[in-house]
Amino acid sequence: MIKLSLPTARQEEFLDITSRLQSVVRESRVRQGLAVVFCPHTTCALTINEHADPDVRADILMALRKMAPDTLPYAHAEGNSPAHVKASLLNQSLTLIIEGGEIQLGTWQGIFLCEFDGPRTRQLWIKVVAGDRD
Amino acid sequence: MIKLSLPTARQEEFLDITSRLQSVVRESRVRQGLAVVFCPHTTCALTINEHADPDVRADILMALRKMAPDTLPYAHAEGNSPAHVKASLLNQSLTLIIEGGEIQLGTWQGIFLCEFDGPRTRQLWIKVVAGDRD
Amino acid sequence: MIKLSLPTARQEEFLDITSRLQSVVRESRVRQGLAVVFCPHTTCALTINEHADPDVRADILMALRKMAPDTLPYAHAEGNSPAHVKASLLNQSLTLIIEGGEIQLGTWQGIFLCEFDGPRTRQLWIKVVAGDRD
Repeated sequence: MIKLSLPTARQEEFLDITSRLQSVVRESRVRQGLAVVFCPHTTCALTINEHADPDVRADILMALRKMAPDTLPYAHAEGNSPAHVKASLLNQSLTLIIEGGEIQLGTWQGIFLCEFDGPRTRQLWIKVVAGDRD
Repeated sequence: MIKLSLPTARQEEFLDITSRLQSVVRESRVRQGLAVVFCPHTTCALTINEHADPDVRADILMALRKMAPDTLPYAHAEGNSPAHVKASLLNQSLTLIIEGGEIQLGTWQGIFLCEFDGPRTRQLWIKVVAGDRD
Repeated sequence: MIKLSLPTARQEEFLDITSRLQSVVRESRVRQGLAVVFCPHTTCALTINEHADPDVRADILMALRKMAPDTLPYAHAEGNSPAHVKASLLNQSLTLIIEGGEIQLGTWQGIFLCEFDGPRTRQLWIKVVAGDRD
């Protein structure tokens, strides 16, 4: 398992981690198989969405704020319940396909660490597993 | 990695892909292991839910439209931000268990390609990995 | 594939299944690899979130009820459409990393079976796959 440490800069942001993950896979020398990316936190998450226009990430963050508004009568005393809700709405683990030594992604896709309670230094865990069949 | 090409027929729909995925696994001749299904798009997604009553899919689509309504002040100029939001709320990759050469699913479960910005021809990528334990 | 049977006690609850999953992995004697946890139901789901303060689970359930309220004009005649919606918003399968014979989790993370249409006896399927590479 590889561990990455990633600082986030804002309370909420989508950090593009695609090239870092591609580097981890390249260094593993696995030509085909799976890469599991795991976020070991409860107020941030992972998602795959458009990397080209940053407005898309801003729009997703805005829509998530409408779904889990700060104004609901939350019980958790730390005040960051909206971040916990948003984390569960997205992903804690992603399973990605490796072919030719690269994570396979669509043309418009990037992989994002989604910070909902930052800024903080976050960890990412990656496990690369070789697969001998298509 | 196997690639499937699937036309969708409407702007929004849940397309049942269960039998196509079972065929891919059967042709791989892997008796036990994992099948990773990956959607390489940013305005459609994957989910697993009830396949028996099509009203369930219609109800999920309706609830998603309430969560990411067209009326929010989106910044992305293409006008399809609700589709991007819905894609991130569901899944880009699913990891399925193979036993006896078949994807294992519950009685009421089907696997769906969720179109949010169609109609279009969509791609699906499937990686079957043999597993030698349990 | 290992099958667990788990009774839930309420209409809606988050049941902490972390220690049961760790036991399954320990008994498999796989030292490193992946554990895929699959929920074969359409009105319950899986998530990973904070295990320390039960208020966090209560807050997530409350926010989900706001997102998929009972009052929407659902078509499905069984009356449990909100449970189907919530199931698709969370996860049917989770892929977890095994190192040193243990599922790797962050300090505050627990794994939960999320019941949305209980109480019922629910099944969980777990597939452990050994991985020989990092």
